[in-house]
Amino acid sequence: MKINKHYMDIEETYLFSEVAERVRKFMAENHGAALIKMGIGDVTRPLCPAAVEALIKASEEMGTAEGFHGYGPEQGYEFLRDEISDYYERNCGVKLFSDEIFISDGAKSDLGNILDIFDVDNVVAVTDPVYPVYVDTNVMAGRKIVKLSATSDNAFLPMPFPGLEADIIYLCSPNNPTGAAYDRQRLQIWVDYANEHGSVILFDAAYESFISDPDVPRSIYEIEGSRSCAIEFCSFSKTAGFTGVRCRYTIVPAGLVRDGVQLRKMWLRRQTTKFNGVSYPVQRAAAACLKDAGHKQIMENIAYYKENARIMAETFEELKWPFTGGKNSPYLWVRCPGGMKSWAFFDDLLSRANVICTPGAGFGECGEGYVRFTSFNTHDNTIEAMKRIREIFS
Amino acid sequence: MKINKHYMDIEETYLFSEVAERVRKFMAENHGAALIKMGIGDVTRPLCPAAVEALIKASEEMGTAEGFHGYGPEQGYEFLRDEISDYYERNCGVKLFSDEIFISDGAKSDLGNILDIFDVDNVVAVTDPVYPVYVDTNVMAGRKIVKLSATSDNAFLPMPFPGLEADIIYLCSPNNPTGAAYDRQRLQIWVDYANEHGSVILFDAAYESFISDPDVPRSIYEIEGSRSCAIEFCSFSKTAGFTGVRCRYTIVPAGLVRDGVQLRKMWLRRQTTKFNGVSYPVQRAAAACLKDAGHKQIMENIAYYKENARIMAETFEELKWPFTGGKNSPYLWVRCPGGMKSWAFFDDLLSRANVICTPGAGFGECGEGYVRFTSFNTHDNTIEAMKRIREIFS
Repeated sequence: MKINKHYMDIEETYLFSEVAERVRKFMAENHGAALIKMGIGDVTRPLCPAAVEALIKASEEMGTAEGFHGYGPEQGYEFLRDEISDYYERNCGVKLFSDEIFISDGAKSDLGNILDIFDVDNVVAVTDPVYPVYVDTNVMAGRKIVKLSATSDNAFLPMPFPGLEADIIYLCSPNNPTGAAYDRQRLQIWVDYANEHGSVILFDAAYESFISDPDVPRSIYEIEGSRSCAIEFCSFSKTAGFTGVRCRYTIVPAGLVRDGVQLRKMWLRRQTTKFNGVSYPVQRAAAACLKDAGHKQIMENIAYYKENARIMAETFEELKWPFTGGKNSPYLWVRCPGGMKSWAFFDDLLSRANVICTPGAGFGECGEGYVRFTSFNTHDNTIEAMKRIREIFS
Repeated sequence: MKINKHYMDIEETYLFSEVAERVRKFMAENHGAALIKMGIGDVTRPLCPAAVEALIKASEEMGTAEGFHGYGPEQGYEFLRDEISDYYERNCGVKLFSDEIFISDGAKSDLGNILDIFDVDNVVAVTDPVYPVYVDTNVMAGRKIVKLSATSDNAFLPMPFPGLEADIIYLCSPNNPTGAAYDRQRLQIWVDYANEHGSVILFDAAYESFISDPDVPRSIYEIEGSRSCAIEFCSFSKTAGFTGVRCRYTIVPAGLVRDGVQLRKMWLRRQTTKFNGVSYPVQRAAAACLKDAGHKQIMENIAYYKENARIMAETFEELKWPFTGGKNSPYLWVRCPGGMKSWAFFDDLLSRANVICTPGAGFGECGEGYVRFTSFNTHDNTIEAMKRIREIFS
């Protein structure tokens, strides 16, 4: 019996445990300090009424002989895939076939599991800073990883460079953690690169519903040539507050063929073999969030978070702190004032403003000197946090 | 870019599509025939009231600011893991620590994904006939597979034999498709084998709640030495009718160490990296099914299916058709009368009795000459199907 030794190569991420530890220590020494958490990576607004209603209705159905649903299709129910297909057409003019859409239970699941269909002997390109899951899932399999620096020099949007040899390319736009988003022109360059090199782009569009800028595509399939090189991952987690409900979808276009094989068919085979489909009531709730009434409700929640982002952006502009994100994203990636390092600024903000952010250094080497703020707190707390920051740093 | 070529080695399973095709053809030629499906592999009884109630309550909670749950723990909520730990103690006297229990969304997911933590260079032993997922998930990864014949000579319970070198051993007990179940003595021999050889047993206990026989262990952890060699997979799918709700759990004991590494820690790392946890309302519903009122309700459904199994067993005994299963399992594995082959008997039963079974040959070479009946239809249909069979074959 041999274990998978590559697991020993995964670097332990101490980012969030270290944040928790420093906060714990601070609170032990400063009883009663009114902390405001501006590093929250999870939504906080309750589920919209349409989703709750659909969950309840489907749960009731399941208790009746006529309405009971057993095993569903591994790829997801047709009613939800049709809803998603309509949503793409309305949202960004992209036409998808129902059999290109795969419903699953979560971002991490699909982003990790998709690697099953690729050989271990592929070079993977990720950005730095990066969502750690892209790296860890490939380290676990023993793949070689190259890092593309996201810095102020490239507006935090790394581009292909001469000599880059990447088989699998992760792009997250709008980005976690930087909040930067690729415009059409930049994304076209990546799509052209992938088609020329036979690479596959894994496009994480988890934050598409935060996009305001008309130049920023909501789906990679708005870009010419993308249907022969890109897989798109999208989610109800941030769009509809489903982080605790669990539903997402992955698009594998029919035109995406490598080594003479449709990747859509390989993914279908992977899913029918290693997945049982998403909970029926959950799929009903997801579908409800894409229909008129539900969609209006979820966009109100998005607007709530975006207003928080606006308040923060206004503050950082006033303070002349360079930052990216906030406009098309719930995240703001802020340069630490006075050339401070990430953890030093984290400590300073914690002790003087009692505000918690996330040190950028935890997301990769290029994150050093930055911190991440998120817009998932309440208006009141966001306003209060910004007031404290303004008073201290003005 | 290289795809995972091992996908090309997976044998296509035409079993259920071929069944559907033959039924379609028969119906086209015999309009209005009153078919009875005795091959159903899915539960049919509605969800129990306690589960529906818990789903609704949790859904309502999710719509409130106070009750909203975002990302949950990847390993599952403590409230459900505690409930499962109590259930093991009540059900079979096994004590589990909460951190040995992992909640997930499905059988196929965990049975497939667990392979992530093992090297590709391991020999895998499966039984023949077999649940195809055990084979396909390993073929996908390129592992070598050895098959252990389950025949009437070994009471459909393959045992280790001199010279067997297996690193990973799949045991499903009570078995799908044969319905045979390992008693304590036989299972002890497997556990001893695994400990001696450093192998790992993947024990699929999906049908444990159908066990009546006190000699048949409900968990492999009833067997001495199992905590250093076995991972157990269990499910709410058949126990609580959750095939459309999606919840299961996997036990990785703290004492299971290979190459100096706790497999529990590797699985935790796999799950935290590639899984986001199970839907909060679903976990609440699962917990409700293990509490007193809910558990009584789900056992009524199990009793309903078991009564169907008893009716079938009685018929096959009368007809002197050798069979296994039915007592500790929803499945009956029946020798085709007159030495008929699986598909010939399937056709005969379809055309003369209008009853659908599943040809055993579809589950492996040793399944030839057998068919599988299941107890997931209604009492009325089961009685009617057996009446027809008795009339034709008496």
